[in-house]
Amino acid sequence: MRLATLRDGSPDGRLVVVSPDGGSCAPAPYPTLQSALENWANAAPQLAAVTTFPDALDPEAIIAPLPRAWQWLDGSAYQSHGDLMNAVLGIAKPETDLPLMYQGTSDKFYGPGDDVKFPDEALGIDFEGEFGVIVDAVPMGVKPEQALGHIKLIVQINDWSLRTLAGPEMKTGFGWIQAKPPCSMAAFAITPDELGNDWRNGRVCLTLKVDWNDRQFGAANGEPMGFGFHELVAHAARTRDLVAGTVIGSGTVSNADFREVGSSCIAERRGIEVIDEGAPRTEFMRFGDTVRMVAVDAAGRAPFGMIEQKVVKA
Amino acid sequence: MRLATLRDGSPDGRLVVVSPDGGSCAPAPYPTLQSALENWANAAPQLAAVTTFPDALDPEAIIAPLPRAWQWLDGSAYQSHGDLMNAVLGIAKPETDLPLMYQGTSDKFYGPGDDVKFPDEALGIDFEGEFGVIVDAVPMGVKPEQALGHIKLIVQINDWSLRTLAGPEMKTGFGWIQAKPPCSMAAFAITPDELGNDWRNGRVCLTLKVDWNDRQFGAANGEPMGFGFHELVAHAARTRDLVAGTVIGSGTVSNADFREVGSSCIAERRGIEVIDEGAPRTEFMRFGDTVRMVAVDAAGRAPFGMIEQKVVKA
Repeated sequence: MRLATLRDGSPDGRLVVVSPDGGSCAPAPYPTLQSALENWANAAPQLAAVTTFPDALDPEAIIAPLPRAWQWLDGSAYQSHGDLMNAVLGIAKPETDLPLMYQGTSDKFYGPGDDVKFPDEALGIDFEGEFGVIVDAVPMGVKPEQALGHIKLIVQINDWSLRTLAGPEMKTGFGWIQAKPPCSMAAFAITPDELGNDWRNGRVCLTLKVDWNDRQFGAANGEPMGFGFHELVAHAARTRDLVAGTVIGSGTVSNADFREVGSSCIAERRGIEVIDEGAPRTEFMRFGDTVRMVAVDAAGRAPFGMIEQKVVKA
Repeated sequence: MRLATLRDGSPDGRLVVVSPDGGSCAPAPYPTLQSALENWANAAPQLAAVTTFPDALDPEAIIAPLPRAWQWLDGSAYQSHGDLMNAVLGIAKPETDLPLMYQGTSDKFYGPGDDVKFPDEALGIDFEGEFGVIVDAVPMGVKPEQALGHIKLIVQINDWSLRTLAGPEMKTGFGWIQAKPPCSMAAFAITPDELGNDWRNGRVCLTLKVDWNDRQFGAANGEPMGFGFHELVAHAARTRDLVAGTVIGSGTVSNADFREVGSSCIAERRGIEVIDEGAPRTEFMRFGDTVRMVAVDAAGRAPFGMIEQKVVKA
């Protein structure tokens, strides 16, 4: 099942069920994705029962499948990304065996085609291609094996980052505020079964193709997460209940053979340059630059649709 | 104007306007505080026009004035608190001239009388008495002097913290997840004019009385913030628009003469013990312990009402 949200002037938009070919849609029996997630046991079979799609799906009308969420927690579950980021930021590897995770702003997710506004190019504008899951209500203290059953939907995310601000904010120990403005979501939120065998061990085993200004920049596979999403959910829920509709991210998709497959963010390439050449060479994004992200399976199918955005001056 | 929210089974509760004596209330012309904040230019005069209060205000029915928010950003604006926390956590003073701020979980704020649940006493259960402001929609890049006008309501907050987890999470640079479960709010959200001259320079110049297990623990005054709330709002909005209903906290209220006035959290007292005696002596909270927090003015009046809670095992 694939779900999308259409622009209707309200903050949460209007939920639709998308046809298997992605070209058409039908009104959902729940007005918004948040309302469906709060009643998922009933909503899931009702949404799945929608099998006729009378309306053409206008790509221009698609906003983020969950345009705002009560909670957004982003992990950093790819070790090869973490190592490179430490290199580029000049930060020691964190002394922890637990997942790394930060709480991000959740009141807005950009839609897949929205222009993304930043105040200043000098802030080090960067994309971060990643996957995310959306859970129903999760009780405090959930175990990873139970957490897997709370993962109701999977999404593809661009976690926009401002690198000039990121290092100094990390050094405060308080995490990121200014360095992490709102993220973007690709067009479709999908149920795990849509991925078939590409959803395994709590991981999205698809290749995330990232193009910067129409040139391929990365094509890392989602499989080698150091922690699966079910483990990230359990980590998040250790001392709190998770509200239905909480979004949990993987962190930047990254593979150990990053020199071959490329990267899902600029900072990672700069980390490689620091290691290989002693200093970063690739600059961050400029106003007018574009980024396109699409996760594809072995057959070339793109279950989440696409993110295709331009950065603009606020 | 003082506003409260009453339990009605819905996540956002039902907004009421509270009488000057705090004993009675009237239904508000907006169903929830969030809905009023999204239309504040219209809502404020309509709420202020309510001058008859036909209903007795049942303290048991009061939940947090904003039971959930789209965004919660908490500063750490009292230098004397920061210095003591660095001492107790063994963390160097952050090298920044900017406000310290973290993004916290906002999908739930406990009400003033709710029991507060934690999984384990060994996590270092601690209270943090502070003040907070609620803004209407704030545009990215707002200046502090403009931000002052976006502060529509003031609240009193208990920022629950799990100290055993806090230090290790800080060292990751990602900020707090497990160490910062949901906060609590005192009974009333008030307009700044309610404080008269005790609201000045973007600071709540009231004494925050904190009792732990019915014994006075602290009575620090809110005035000596290193940054005013307007500066915290501007910091938060540097790279993002702030959604209406964003809550911004002061951090633990603390005064330089903490040995005389006491502290608003246990960790701070432990920091004093580390400095004075070489090691902390005061233990953190146990299940069954209570904390009461009330901000009072020179006349003994308590504009926010009270927080009075018990910690229990989840």
